[in-house]
Amino acid sequence: MADKIYRVNMTTLTTSSEDVPEKWKGLGGRGLTSTIVAQEVKPTCDPLSKDNKLIFAPGLLAATPCANSGRLSAGAKSPLTGTIKESNAGGTAAQCLARLGIKALIIEGLPEKDTFYSLHVDKNGVTIREEKELVGKWNYEVMKNLTKKHGDKIGILSIGPAGEMCMAAANISVKDPDGNIRSHGRGGLGAVMGSKKIKYIAIDDAGGPGIQIVDKEKFKKASVPFAKALVKHPVSGESLKLYGTNVLVNILNESGGLPTRNFRDGQFAGANKISGETLRDTIISRKGKPHHGCHAGCIIQCSQVYNDKDGNYVTSGIEYETIWGFGANCCIDDLDIIAEADHIMDDIGIDSIETVVAMGVVMEAGIIPFGDGPGALRLLKEIGAGTPLGRTIGAGAGAVGRTHGITRVPVVKNQALSAYDPRAVKGMGITYATSTMGSDHTAGYCIPVNILKVGGYVDPLKKEGQVELSRRLQIGTTYLDITGLCVFVGFAALDDPAVASLLADMLNAKDGLNKTAEEWRALGRTVLLIEHEFNLAAGFTNKDDRLPEFFKEPVPPHNAVWDFTEEEIDSFWNF
Amino acid sequence: MADKIYRVNMTTLTTSSEDVPEKWKGLGGRGLTSTIVAQEVKPTCDPLSKDNKLIFAPGLLAATPCANSGRLSAGAKSPLTGTIKESNAGGTAAQCLARLGIKALIIEGLPEKDTFYSLHVDKNGVTIREEKELVGKWNYEVMKNLTKKHGDKIGILSIGPAGEMCMAAANISVKDPDGNIRSHGRGGLGAVMGSKKIKYIAIDDAGGPGIQIVDKEKFKKASVPFAKALVKHPVSGESLKLYGTNVLVNILNESGGLPTRNFRDGQFAGANKISGETLRDTIISRKGKPHHGCHAGCIIQCSQVYNDKDGNYVTSGIEYETIWGFGANCCIDDLDIIAEADHIMDDIGIDSIETVVAMGVVMEAGIIPFGDGPGALRLLKEIGAGTPLGRTIGAGAGAVGRTHGITRVPVVKNQALSAYDPRAVKGMGITYATSTMGSDHTAGYCIPVNILKVGGYVDPLKKEGQVELSRRLQIGTTYLDITGLCVFVGFAALDDPAVASLLADMLNAKDGLNKTAEEWRALGRTVLLIEHEFNLAAGFTNKDDRLPEFFKEPVPPHNAVWDFTEEEIDSFWNF
Repeated sequence: MADKIYRVNMTTLTTSSEDVPEKWKGLGGRGLTSTIVAQEVKPTCDPLSKDNKLIFAPGLLAATPCANSGRLSAGAKSPLTGTIKESNAGGTAAQCLARLGIKALIIEGLPEKDTFYSLHVDKNGVTIREEKELVGKWNYEVMKNLTKKHGDKIGILSIGPAGEMCMAAANISVKDPDGNIRSHGRGGLGAVMGSKKIKYIAIDDAGGPGIQIVDKEKFKKASVPFAKALVKHPVSGESLKLYGTNVLVNILNESGGLPTRNFRDGQFAGANKISGETLRDTIISRKGKPHHGCHAGCIIQCSQVYNDKDGNYVTSGIEYETIWGFGANCCIDDLDIIAEADHIMDDIGIDSIETVVAMGVVMEAGIIPFGDGPGALRLLKEIGAGTPLGRTIGAGAGAVGRTHGITRVPVVKNQALSAYDPRAVKGMGITYATSTMGSDHTAGYCIPVNILKVGGYVDPLKKEGQVELSRRLQIGTTYLDITGLCVFVGFAALDDPAVASLLADMLNAKDGLNKTAEEWRALGRTVLLIEHEFNLAAGFTNKDDRLPEFFKEPVPPHNAVWDFTEEEIDSFWNF
Repeated sequence: MADKIYRVNMTTLTTSSEDVPEKWKGLGGRGLTSTIVAQEVKPTCDPLSKDNKLIFAPGLLAATPCANSGRLSAGAKSPLTGTIKESNAGGTAAQCLARLGIKALIIEGLPEKDTFYSLHVDKNGVTIREEKELVGKWNYEVMKNLTKKHGDKIGILSIGPAGEMCMAAANISVKDPDGNIRSHGRGGLGAVMGSKKIKYIAIDDAGGPGIQIVDKEKFKKASVPFAKALVKHPVSGESLKLYGTNVLVNILNESGGLPTRNFRDGQFAGANKISGETLRDTIISRKGKPHHGCHAGCIIQCSQVYNDKDGNYVTSGIEYETIWGFGANCCIDDLDIIAEADHIMDDIGIDSIETVVAMGVVMEAGIIPFGDGPGALRLLKEIGAGTPLGRTIGAGAGAVGRTHGITRVPVVKNQALSAYDPRAVKGMGITYATSTMGSDHTAGYCIPVNILKVGGYVDPLKKEGQVELSRRLQIGTTYLDITGLCVFVGFAALDDPAVASLLADMLNAKDGLNKTAEEWRALGRTVLLIEHEFNLAAGFTNKDDRLPEFFKEPVPPHNAVWDFTEEEIDSFWNF
């Protein structure tokens, strides 16, 4: 059975399916979400209006035996940035959709009634139901309730109170294989889902057609060595499994690129207390899981389960960026508080990066002092309760700044910067400035080359080579986001031509094609340019590709400054 | 003595004066503030950063015997809109500055110390003093304290708590001849003053050089018939004196252009209770002042003093837009509540138009219901107290919408629309969309021609002729803002070539020039283009010249819709 496009019209409360049109064939994941947004969403529309569309698309390799291929792309026009937005997440939904032969799920319109709905996707299509029971519930309860009702095999996409209240930093939660939470974190896609009044989407792939691989033998010949290459690589095969992404606390602290106290310093005195090594020891001593995968087929296993002192579950999949944000950025050197914060943010459904940076601006404004962990936890709960201050924090770091007269607000296109100081890791600064998504570290993740010396080396403190590096990585990442592979396969795949060839081999084998690795990779360039065109049509200009002024201040210990000229930044788009 | 430019550097806490450079000669008011902003402020800077400048400039005719010439222009990059901003106000400050020979007062930089200052301007220059006593005080107390201390002849510019907290809708208050309050209302210039840590500016013109008129005889020959023309005109000579600007409630209600319930209807059932006629009767019965001037030399006298039932002062200069906003827009049909609201907004120093529209969005979000007058008063006090919700409202209508997931937010370039529905009065829609200031009714006030049939007639419900009308009026208004004349002289002056000639005669007589009326008027075009260029350099595009999508909904009673194409709107800039 050929793949289908499913549409849900929330204005008419009807659903339909259609064959994949010619123009969308060969696309998946971010390639499909961004292309559909560009073709069907008016670039100047209000992101919370009926004219926006929310699109989910599994990657091209979803549910195949390819390792780490279970990422789901979600796309729309972002209520946080006003740009096009793709945010991808692990969890089980991508594979469920792929096994149902669903190439993309497009949600359109807005209901006229002020009531919430749920979507039920199975082998017979999509059903829309009015939802009463779970409205107002937080994500863990939603997940628990639905797995109890429908079994733990189903895929779930849900929003918490942040999404219901259409907060611009609201995320979309995805059930992971253990019934815990992964997130389409960035850009407020949970608010788009909330505006469309969808509390959750349950996906049951039982009896679905499954996925088709045209040349299974050829696929296997590539997928096995591809997996071996990931395992063999010191980063994807060892560091990430041992310490999770939080391995980076010590690394960034040593390099002077760990933004501290709302980006005032590049090193944090409490780094050791929140490092990946400390995290691992704590997890092991409390009988948590030091590593596990966010989706079936993940062999990198950077996720983990963090327990409290009594051995009870607190959170899972706690990332370096979250730990950095509450840790160094807010000067809170207590992993238990940070883990509780991570739990609350997952539970209320709010992007952790946007929120930790917003919390830094809250501290900058003097609402609570830097280092006030209990205060930060209290304010997170205010987001869930929708208090006036909670609403402001839930609208992101920019909103906190604008309502409190604060100019030290680390955002680009109104989206918060992440855990890498752009002055001390200049490649990241170019990615923050130029990404089509607003500031986004994963869009072109220069840490391997700038810091880890993986895939070459470009001195992080010098301007030379950063624009080219970011461009190369942004194209490569867009390509990976099309395949549905985790960005961390990039350590092994992006720069080793042999591994990149294996990826192309799998893509060719799946669909009976015969494209070169370079041709496949070129898809990344094409999609990036489509996204850029959408943003230009929405009214963005190169004036938006700028870091805030305060990054001209030197950051210790290197006293590095943000010193790119406008022309240098703008040369990024010389494709 | 030749006029001077005074500079205050708040970083170094030093002041200086300089001769007027050639490039600024022949400019005044908005012409000078906008030119200086365009030449000296980086278009992409953060409006609250050290790189912004706050500029005050009296108009070309300030302190001359020309009637209604006492408006003061304030200019900066706006923290509300991100555009260039000029906001002018009556009161006594313009004439004081002009009599001191101060062509412009330019305030630069930011102090390093977290303390407030005051500026004292007199014949010897500008002195900067640390200010402790009045910090945190509201405007009426500031005015009272300073006139007690320095006499009631001084000019005062001050900010209230909204400005101190750098709220994006904070205004700058100006003392009027009675010691009451006029406002540089729009665009958050009070936040710029607050960011520069200036609580107030006291201006003492005693012993100043006064103003010079090169040909006094010629000036008088023009100024006398010019004043007569204003008095003779039915709008500026009669309606405005009788009813104030609030004469418009009934007129707009009848025409179906009175935005009601957050722009859902064009007529308000309670219009009669808040009309200019009712206002006048109420004022007279309570022994208030039905008319007075906001500055010496005003012969239109649209301002008034409103007393409570016991005959005690409540507020003065209560404008149609304020009464409309709390009245029709928020469905509060009680003049006493609206007058108290006006008092509070003056006292805390917040733009009334932005705030009334923000209050409509607050009601849209369900925080308080439409029609809840006591609730609205309570929330205004929250602005003054800086509560989280007060901060959000103080950041303007857009901020309330963004933090509450509301798309029905009547703003352009993040500044609130005013008291004229753009669907039923289409000329105003073009002005809202295209003004260099963000949505601003005074920028090109089409009501005379669209509604009052003064200076021609263009059917308000049809598209034909509106772009040309708005363009003509925006150029004419910019010209008036350069002269320092009140916009209401436009009723008589803009469209009667004889009256326009008298204005040119006064300008020529004052400075010994010999330009035609058309040459003088062309200054308006030049300055408008300078402002537009600044906005383009700040990253604005024609995509920002758009009304919110909801204006495509028909508005009763005419069921008019906003139906201009993008091309039609953009043709505005075919100068």
